[in-house]
Amino acid sequence: MIPRYSRPEMTAIWDPATKFRIWYEIEAHACDAMAKLGVIPQENADAVWKAKDVEFDVARIDEIEAVTKHDVIAFLTHLAEIIGNDEARFVHQGMTSSDVLDTTLNVQLVRAADILIADMDRVLAALKERALEHKDTVRIGRSHGIHAEPTTMGLTFSRFYAEMDRGRTRLINAREEIATGAISGAVGTFANIDPAVEEHVCNEMGLKPEPISTQVIPRDRHAMFFATLGVIASSMENIATEIRHMQRTEVLEAEEFFSKGQKGSSAMPHKRNPVLTENLTGLARLVRMSVVPAMENVTLWHERDISHSSVERAIGPDTTVTLDFALNRLAGVIEKLVIYPENMLANMNKFRGLVMSQRVLLALTQAGVSREDSYKLVQRNAMKVWEQGADFQTELLADDDVRAALSEEEIREKFDLGYHTKHVETIFARVFG
Amino acid sequence: MIPRYSRPEMTAIWDPATKFRIWYEIEAHACDAMAKLGVIPQENADAVWKAKDVEFDVARIDEIEAVTKHDVIAFLTHLAEIIGNDEARFVHQGMTSSDVLDTTLNVQLVRAADILIADMDRVLAALKERALEHKDTVRIGRSHGIHAEPTTMGLTFSRFYAEMDRGRTRLINAREEIATGAISGAVGTFANIDPAVEEHVCNEMGLKPEPISTQVIPRDRHAMFFATLGVIASSMENIATEIRHMQRTEVLEAEEFFSKGQKGSSAMPHKRNPVLTENLTGLARLVRMSVVPAMENVTLWHERDISHSSVERAIGPDTTVTLDFALNRLAGVIEKLVIYPENMLANMNKFRGLVMSQRVLLALTQAGVSREDSYKLVQRNAMKVWEQGADFQTELLADDDVRAALSEEEIREKFDLGYHTKHVETIFARVFG
Amino acid sequence: MIPRYSRPEMTAIWDPATKFRIWYEIEAHACDAMAKLGVIPQENADAVWKAKDVEFDVARIDEIEAVTKHDVIAFLTHLAEIIGNDEARFVHQGMTSSDVLDTTLNVQLVRAADILIADMDRVLAALKERALEHKDTVRIGRSHGIHAEPTTMGLTFSRFYAEMDRGRTRLINAREEIATGAISGAVGTFANIDPAVEEHVCNEMGLKPEPISTQVIPRDRHAMFFATLGVIASSMENIATEIRHMQRTEVLEAEEFFSKGQKGSSAMPHKRNPVLTENLTGLARLVRMSVVPAMENVTLWHERDISHSSVERAIGPDTTVTLDFALNRLAGVIEKLVIYPENMLANMNKFRGLVMSQRVLLALTQAGVSREDSYKLVQRNAMKVWEQGADFQTELLADDDVRAALSEEEIREKFDLGYHTKHVETIFARVFG
Amino acid sequence: MIPRYSRPEMTAIWDPATKFRIWYEIEAHACDAMAKLGVIPQENADAVWKAKDVEFDVARIDEIEAVTKHDVIAFLTHLAEIIGNDEARFVHQGMTSSDVLDTTLNVQLVRAADILIADMDRVLAALKERALEHKDTVRIGRSHGIHAEPTTMGLTFSRFYAEMDRGRTRLINAREEIATGAISGAVGTFANIDPAVEEHVCNEMGLKPEPISTQVIPRDRHAMFFATLGVIASSMENIATEIRHMQRTEVLEAEEFFSKGQKGSSAMPHKRNPVLTENLTGLARLVRMSVVPAMENVTLWHERDISHSSVERAIGPDTTVTLDFALNRLAGVIEKLVIYPENMLANMNKFRGLVMSQRVLLALTQAGVSREDSYKLVQRNAMKVWEQGADFQTELLADDDVRAALSEEEIREKFDLGYHTKHVETIFARVFG
Repeated sequence: MIPRYSRPEMTAIWDPATKFRIWYEIEAHACDAMAKLGVIPQENADAVWKAKDVEFDVARIDEIEAVTKHDVIAFLTHLAEIIGNDEARFVHQGMTSSDVLDTTLNVQLVRAADILIADMDRVLAALKERALEHKDTVRIGRSHGIHAEPTTMGLTFSRFYAEMDRGRTRLINAREEIATGAISGAVGTFANIDPAVEEHVCNEMGLKPEPISTQVIPRDRHAMFFATLGVIASSMENIATEIRHMQRTEVLEAEEFFSKGQKGSSAMPHKRNPVLTENLTGLARLVRMSVVPAMENVTLWHERDISHSSVERAIGPDTTVTLDFALNRLAGVIEKLVIYPENMLANMNKFRGLVMSQRVLLALTQAGVSREDSYKLVQRNAMKVWEQGADFQTELLADDDVRAALSEEEIREKFDLGYHTKHVETIFARVFG
Repeated sequence: MIPRYSRPEMTAIWDPATKFRIWYEIEAHACDAMAKLGVIPQENADAVWKAKDVEFDVARIDEIEAVTKHDVIAFLTHLAEIIGNDEARFVHQGMTSSDVLDTTLNVQLVRAADILIADMDRVLAALKERALEHKDTVRIGRSHGIHAEPTTMGLTFSRFYAEMDRGRTRLINAREEIATGAISGAVGTFANIDPAVEEHVCNEMGLKPEPISTQVIPRDRHAMFFATLGVIASSMENIATEIRHMQRTEVLEAEEFFSKGQKGSSAMPHKRNPVLTENLTGLARLVRMSVVPAMENVTLWHERDISHSSVERAIGPDTTVTLDFALNRLAGVIEKLVIYPENMLANMNKFRGLVMSQRVLLALTQAGVSREDSYKLVQRNAMKVWEQGADFQTELLADDDVRAALSEEEIREKFDLGYHTKHVETIFARVFG
Repeated sequence: MIPRYSRPEMTAIWDPATKFRIWYEIEAHACDAMAKLGVIPQENADAVWKAKDVEFDVARIDEIEAVTKHDVIAFLTHLAEIIGNDEARFVHQGMTSSDVLDTTLNVQLVRAADILIADMDRVLAALKERALEHKDTVRIGRSHGIHAEPTTMGLTFSRFYAEMDRGRTRLINAREEIATGAISGAVGTFANIDPAVEEHVCNEMGLKPEPISTQVIPRDRHAMFFATLGVIASSMENIATEIRHMQRTEVLEAEEFFSKGQKGSSAMPHKRNPVLTENLTGLARLVRMSVVPAMENVTLWHERDISHSSVERAIGPDTTVTLDFALNRLAGVIEKLVIYPENMLANMNKFRGLVMSQRVLLALTQAGVSREDSYKLVQRNAMKVWEQGADFQTELLADDDVRAALSEEEIREKFDLGYHTKHVETIFARVFG
Repeated sequence: MIPRYSRPEMTAIWDPATKFRIWYEIEAHACDAMAKLGVIPQENADAVWKAKDVEFDVARIDEIEAVTKHDVIAFLTHLAEIIGNDEARFVHQGMTSSDVLDTTLNVQLVRAADILIADMDRVLAALKERALEHKDTVRIGRSHGIHAEPTTMGLTFSRFYAEMDRGRTRLINAREEIATGAISGAVGTFANIDPAVEEHVCNEMGLKPEPISTQVIPRDRHAMFFATLGVIASSMENIATEIRHMQRTEVLEAEEFFSKGQKGSSAMPHKRNPVLTENLTGLARLVRMSVVPAMENVTLWHERDISHSSVERAIGPDTTVTLDFALNRLAGVIEKLVIYPENMLANMNKFRGLVMSQRVLLALTQAGVSREDSYKLVQRNAMKVWEQGADFQTELLADDDVRAALSEEEIREKFDLGYHTKHVETIFARVFG
């Protein structure tokens, strides 16, 4: 977790204080359920809630842990210091540390997912707005980095919208994947704790009971969660890369927003670097790197081993914090992206009219010219554009053989941009409904 | 794709012949739609279906490709050889190669997913059967590879069932992810082809139209698909590792099935190696290794670049073929796994009764003995078991201080295995409904 | 291994026939050593060499394996069919299958490495030639895709040369890593075979004896080998990406070579796609994806498990074949890359002279103008270039405040490209010696 | 970087204070070189050293950066505050931020490598000591987790020694890889700074000049560095896994050291969990996950983009800190590992004498019994051991058919452990020289 790539709302989820608060709630709810079952006295369950508004002393807990070498015991000891040793004596009864730790991790991941979903909403809103704004802003579509046929900037934003919207759906599924809790005791048999406790705690914590756990919640859920973040990060990289391409000096169809006062941009006005989207490219790698270890974590020996734990201590916070930061940075970039429609047109016309050559070829064929002859006709005029900088339409109009097959009007019509944008509305309807 | 780790049904999906068949169907359905729209003559559309029952000559297509250097053109040329040049002249009109290639890839991935879902069903059926069979087969639960508390073999199978069932759900989602097709032309604008063609083709091929494509279908879909296979492979590794552990000489709670005649097993009857599950461990790595490249494939330059293609030529077949083979091997291993319940009991009792020490500790506390004293009482008897091989229950019964707190019956009750298995039914109901 | 991305010299290494030939040589050399030690009769060792020029019948070996379910036994049975049962009875004595299999794998990897080193030599030769050719071909250096200061195309080639040369050194180290063999018996204790046999066999096969093996050769060696290929593939992607950038329509500083007859390039002369370097980008991912599984292979249980085997059956051939193909493709691209020096100049001058603004700023400061004033002077002239398309030098010369600080000669000197290329020779001397 | 998995010596390298100190030294040495070249006045170079013993005020620098949005400028501003604005005016002349940042990163990585090499030395010393201690401690060798033939614990330690020693050599190479610096200006052309400055700075900082850089030092170096750490982490996991296996309840051939007072171990004396080695297994994944992003970082656009930076901000500290911690933890585990030779013998004899069956089979064959008959003889006695718990040697001695071929002495000799350990000395000589 790198401070400069962090937002406080997300880092707060991973604060020790938050963790202890969740531990506390789990223990308190478990006591409630046990009291209701008659397993422990009601007054002991009630007593636990005395700490409801207490801010736990993280330093004190650390101090105890330095002695006990066990974080959950340290916390329970501190809790007993607050509510009284006697009152606390049934807290955690029949539970294992993993019951608390694993349920807590999932609460944290669910909360993280909720923030990330909100982040996605911001990205989606920005993409939609810019898509509508530039629905008809024509620019050249490119395959292999080479001019192909016209498209619109709105379509570009729309496809990113559709991609991120799929990401949002996946994120909701991923949230569902890890929204389970387990209070099932030593090896998951409920030998020392009634399943009703698990049900109550999960219900209170916004989780579903894990249908079958061992000492731990199965890690395929977490693997799927991190894999999903990896896919979203990859989509983010896709958008970032498009912007980086658009901003390069020779293209200059868009620029990341530069505030007036931003240093160094005026003496070299061309030197506005797409540093935010380059940064997003790197952050995507950081998010993605958690996927494989999360998958390696799935295999645990028998009813549990602790190999997954150190991995999760790192990738739990790091990956969610990084993606949260990155999605917000991405949203900001999109919201404020400076678009240069005139440059788009200029670029499209770099080889004057040549991007229409395929349409002309097709028209000639349809007008009865043989495929071979059509090709030669197009070719000889295309080469004049390519080699001498001529204008394609002008050359075609002046070519008698072409004119024998196509009227002036027919030729001119081939250069109508509307031909390429006629289904933009249809596609927008598909994407935005 | 390694022949020894392949099954014919899956490899058939990736045969050149299958690929050309799908290409053909896409082109033929597209002609139908275009004829219906009045874009091409109905007789030309009809003519394409003359090749319906023709087996395409792969060698001939390769021969043409050697000249044209373009696989789709080579195919179309060959198709024209079959149905006639004139009849074929509207085939592929307004389409790009990517329309055919990308839609075909998704058809193949959907079919692969269908096989994989069936594979999962076989694994699930095996797990369920073995779970029911060994619902009450007690064995020791282990955390960190160390004996913890009793559980049952049925619970082990059940949790693998639940995990694989989640995998099955994910696989269905993954299938959904890639069940789209695109017939949207050069840069995805439908400039040269009506969206109705796409709808018709997709409908016929069992796909949904990609709401917005560029020249290609967006690769986040494929990334999610391969990520899902990676998670399933990791779950498979989880099961395989459990079996490898169970089979080791000192544990011997289960063995992969050895046919009577299998060489070498009799002179060294202990030397039955869990080679199938070890193999599954390796195959899981092979499936998983496609996840990162599939994610790297998401970022394409502008409306498309071809960098994803070589990756997919490899991981498309390799990953699905490997996982298909592996899931079937896994199912076979589970179906025929030889279980040794008596060894499970023997292992559990290695330290005679010691796994019950925590229950005794709890009982003493509940009987009013202080935590410290309870601990000492348990400890002094536990050490006799550990150091001298004594029987824990016997020692407790003979310990006056223990007896002062607990009756013989109470002590004996603590060694009742039923205590640990009392919720097996509940858990089974959760898992199997 | 995808046929279209394969070269025969490399695939031959992984042919079953090659594998059996290596197995044979290992067994024959082992017999020689055992005979010399007096462990087996000399005539039996001699008899093995009767098969020296025999081509083994792969189909027959497969047939036997179908019965024995063991590849090495199948081979030995076939060998006995050739040299006689009695003569063959000491072959493989005291050895395990792994002795043969692991030593063979390393022989194959060493041979693969030798081809890859030769591939690197071809790439290096091409880079050096093009570097020298374009040592003084000026083009704009770019940071963040934005024009920065001038550099030369020769420097670009030179740095790729230096990077690939480091890759070559790493490859030689990687070859060294896996150039070991082991003939150490069941668990590597030499209980049934003398270490002298291992020494002799390794010596004959061009390997060093593995100082300490278990039943297998330790897999950290292979992990390092594949990691090294992954780094080289990444360098390859680096070069490929540069070329893809150079070829894009708006930049057009270079193009992959297109043969005259190559279809489709004339009617749309701008539509020459950098498909080879895009392909290399994808192939780099395929090479890189073997790195993590190779690292996961390092951990084997006790003296061996077979989990690594399936992974190596895939990545052994696939990764070396893919990288071999890719490096040769890369060499071809570099050798024939079409460079457009005039476009380089045109691009550099897109914003007429503006790339020199930093030098002017520095000159003003050095001439005694305050930092703030210097900045304002540069800025007001720069903005005319940026906004009105003026020429920077012309504007500066006409700016009285600038002229008060700098003479015409001084201003003109700031636009001298030689300033930027004055150390090219020094750098070339560093790189090429 | 997770505090509980960190050691102060390594984290100190990544402290902002350390970073600024290195920046300072680079700038100061650069001034020295420039003064010597006559580019800047000697007194200005001398003035910079006034800050030699000053501890930079990190908070103040952060404060300035909040305004300038540029870390290097913020630092230079702070430096000017210390040594005087006028004195500082030539600092950084002709350099780019990357010159400072990239050279600094490599200084940090070199220092990190030095610590890691020392860590490896500690691991190696521990492995050697334990290898010598248990050179002759016999235990069963296992393939596939199944008993195979006897080996010694010393051989196990020796092979880990040899593996880690290879790792150490690789680490030295990796250190060499990143021990370069660059002071080459904007796009690496030395246009504004003499190569002699780079040479001087590198020399002072313990680096070699990067032969050819762009604005940045090429990232293949860093990829190789992190790949190497990934291989070492994998070897660490290999050792950790062996110990986890040895400690499991049914095997119990070794245990991680437990201090007397360590909680919970006495009431359940068998419940000593190999938590340290499980933790190392997870930490290995964390180290390994940096490999792919480091490789993805190799491809930068043209003369540089900043995508690598965020990745390195994370994996630079995280990976080196984690591996440093892990290697020390590993060393501690090995140094204090509790070995149970008697359990090793007991395990080996689980199937009384059966591990010798292959030797008996060979002896019968060599004594002239046919292969088939030998097999039957061994088999019928082996099955008595397997099924009835008989002692293999006793059964063989009592089998008349066996005795017809082998004398009592010959049979007994087959059970001599010395047969399996006779080459231990040879192997030790190979490993330890």
